[in-house]
Amino acid sequence: MKILPEPNRSASQTSTVVQLRNWRRGISADKVIGLVPTMGALHEGHRSLIRRAREQCDLVALTIFVNPTQFAPDEDFSTYPRTHEQDLEIARAENVDLVYLANTEELYPAGFATLIDLPALSQRLCGISRPHFFAGVSLIVLKLFHLFEPDKTYFGEKDYQQLVIIEQMTRDLDLDVEIVRCPIVREPDGLALSSRNVNLSAAAREDAQVLSRSLFLARQRWQAGEVIATHLREEALRSYGTEVDLDYLEVLDRDSLEPLVYIQPERGAVICVAANVGGVRLIDNIVLEPH
Amino acid sequence: MKILPEPNRSASQTSTVVQLRNWRRGISADKVIGLVPTMGALHEGHRSLIRRAREQCDLVALTIFVNPTQFAPDEDFSTYPRTHEQDLEIARAENVDLVYLANTEELYPAGFATLIDLPALSQRLCGISRPHFFAGVSLIVLKLFHLFEPDKTYFGEKDYQQLVIIEQMTRDLDLDVEIVRCPIVREPDGLALSSRNVNLSAAAREDAQVLSRSLFLARQRWQAGEVIATHLREEALRSYGTEVDLDYLEVLDRDSLEPLVYIQPERGAVICVAANVGGVRLIDNIVLEPH
Repeated sequence: MKILPEPNRSASQTSTVVQLRNWRRGISADKVIGLVPTMGALHEGHRSLIRRAREQCDLVALTIFVNPTQFAPDEDFSTYPRTHEQDLEIARAENVDLVYLANTEELYPAGFATLIDLPALSQRLCGISRPHFFAGVSLIVLKLFHLFEPDKTYFGEKDYQQLVIIEQMTRDLDLDVEIVRCPIVREPDGLALSSRNVNLSAAAREDAQVLSRSLFLARQRWQAGEVIATHLREEALRSYGTEVDLDYLEVLDRDSLEPLVYIQPERGAVICVAANVGGVRLIDNIVLEPH
Repeated sequence: MKILPEPNRSASQTSTVVQLRNWRRGISADKVIGLVPTMGALHEGHRSLIRRAREQCDLVALTIFVNPTQFAPDEDFSTYPRTHEQDLEIARAENVDLVYLANTEELYPAGFATLIDLPALSQRLCGISRPHFFAGVSLIVLKLFHLFEPDKTYFGEKDYQQLVIIEQMTRDLDLDVEIVRCPIVREPDGLALSSRNVNLSAAAREDAQVLSRSLFLARQRWQAGEVIATHLREEALRSYGTEVDLDYLEVLDRDSLEPLVYIQPERGAVICVAANVGGVRLIDNIVLEPH
């Protein structure tokens, strides 16, 4: 497994970006390259992305970068978990070909001036409390697409709004990369895996179950034939007491993220939820598959 | 010479974007691809870009697209000259390999949501009177870079601010493409070639000379040793009467486009000017080469 920047080469003359480009240029055009962009603190959710990439691609590249442009000053950039040693072990165990430990100074040098945004999709849901988040995500993903020129790239459905934004950006900008959606991985009690879960206290960990529980209940009613989105939303909201600070819970169109009143059975929907649980921001969602 | 969309194929089933991708995929990795993005109405300035590309590249692609996202509703999108037949003759004469006659519906389909901007560079100079112009330029250039994946791409120094913005975007987004700067081509009396020149009346054509004349005078003083930017600016401004409606004339850093007071002799500068001449917006500039 190749690691960039190379750990044993102190103060290399060549920038990591140049090393990366050289690596990329050495790969023949008939090889399928899969990219798994992450912020590290890898868990079983990330492993599922890597495994899917391993199945579908000749070469698998993993990036680990806690991207500062997607955090606001009052957010958890500094306390976001960082577990590089463990991440590298996981990458090795999963047969990753290249790990790119990206570096803020190289990716955002002095004078950096480019912004990218999809305001119609980024300024709703999580974007209301995190107005710069998706612009930061779009920017780093676009940069990584340019650096790796992957054939396929792997994102978890857990970050549903992010996934929709990256898919839309990819179409809009004519990027020749396939976005592979990977299903949410959950704890036995339903909690969606997240690197932030390690920051939950024992009590908050208990309280956090309400997110997935509420979504499962709403999905049961959808499966039983309910097509009025507001009824499903009310059903889901009934689960919440005062133990979590709910940010939003919405029944949305799966592509446009527009809130729905009536769900076309042949189209389905997605229910997205975000809440602050004991000081940790958690999100979850469930897709209501078409009948 | 290949033309996309293919003119003799009526209502092709395959989108032009897909045809373009197929063309691109058929080119082996050792070939150097040069891209010349234009809005058509080709003149000797464009020909100089194509010739430069022809010298340096194995394959030359020319795009012709009057990009609507870089025009404001009150601007000259509808009167911008369109001379497709003549453009294709020029492309043939210059041995272009592929002409892409881009199509608004394919490049900006319904639901298009992505914006890109470099506000620190785009909101000054031409960006004051044309606040959306450079965001539109950046967007279409980025899309064309993705569609063609060129090795080199050719832009005229005539659109100096545009060139700086595209260079900055290319660096910021880690795009693996070389931006080749091509010098301004001028009429014998100094007027910088522009597709918009055909819209000048005979009187306005005469008046338009003041732009280049003022720049040449300022450059003479620079060459004679003047390093105070404000003196050069005053020298240039002395040429202007009431015959043209001056928008701006500024002495700027060549990379950051910051206005200068003192010019470091070893760094040089650029003087940029924009004016409305008989209802036609013209721009020009001159680089003050380092001593």
